[in-house]
Amino acid sequence: MIVLGIDPGMAIIGYGVVEKKNNILRPIDYGAITTPPTMEIPQRLVTIYDAVQELIARFQPDEVAIEELFFNKNVKTAITVGHARGVSVLAAAKTGLNLYEYTPLQVKQSVVGYGRAEKSQIQQMVKALLGLKEIPKPDDAADALAVAICHIHCADMGRKYGSRSLFC
Amino acid sequence: MIVLGIDPGMAIIGYGVVEKKNNILRPIDYGAITTPPTMEIPQRLVTIYDAVQELIARFQPDEVAIEELFFNKNVKTAITVGHARGVSVLAAAKTGLNLYEYTPLQVKQSVVGYGRAEKSQIQQMVKALLGLKEIPKPDDAADALAVAICHIHCADMGRKYGSRSLFC
Repeated sequence: MIVLGIDPGMAIIGYGVVEKKNNILRPIDYGAITTPPTMEIPQRLVTIYDAVQELIARFQPDEVAIEELFFNKNVKTAITVGHARGVSVLAAAKTGLNLYEYTPLQVKQSVVGYGRAEKSQIQQMVKALLGLKEIPKPDDAADALAVAICHIHCADMGRKYGSRSLFC
Repeated sequence: MIVLGIDPGMAIIGYGVVEKKNNILRPIDYGAITTPPTMEIPQRLVTIYDAVQELIARFQPDEVAIEELFFNKNVKTAITVGHARGVSVLAAAKTGLNLYEYTPLQVKQSVVGYGRAEKSQIQQMVKALLGLKEIPKPDDAADALAVAICHIHCADMGRKYGSRSLFC
């Protein structure tokens, strides 16, 4: 099974492609899509949408896992990043793939075993679980790999996007 | 000039198509795209994206005007509706059309001449300006027609989506 993990955003969208074969996790590719703040929002959304569709065409994942957004208070930021996450979800849904979503808490619990894990702990675990020589950069790519790993861990009992069942 | 106005949302997306010809405003069509809450978010986004693209193909507007979102505090709602507005913006941007955005305040100022106008005042003005026999229903369609009218009023001095210039 190949899973595309996405860490959504407007300026930086992390992605990580992970394969599970014979019970072994293997990183296929990871990186980040970026859009400059000087670009108008509609064009940034087009860039994100096209890039996510291109990733799906290139790596042919079986499923897509995308992190949920979490904001405490900044409504303006929430709306903007909501736009960007919306087109990432759309790009995957348009291909007919099943989409799964996980909260940051779920990702931490699944990858580190501890919901309040620090970012550096997640990165170390991603490096170890995928047998990488170094911590994947940028942070957004490491986060996206973590979402993909979380989904592989949860795949058998995973909750489908939009379902109201509990984790995971 | 033909303008497609959009009142964005997840459950109900109002649309209004207005033509300005010989200095007269004429309503070409208006209504609402709806997505049921029982449908999963990715499918709702696909429905909205496809419907907005279909409107553009059918009415061939010269420009698209879309209302900005305004939320006081509910971050969760802001994220969800941000997703929906994002795919509406994407659908228009994908066709290469220029997109313009207006705040609710700008729409009220432009259509009623008063930024704190009540919803019923906007609806009455939309009816009068477009020579309609009745107030357009649902409310979201009336709002979308108001955004289109606002853009036509402002078109000469309008601000392009993402620009930082002041109204209008």
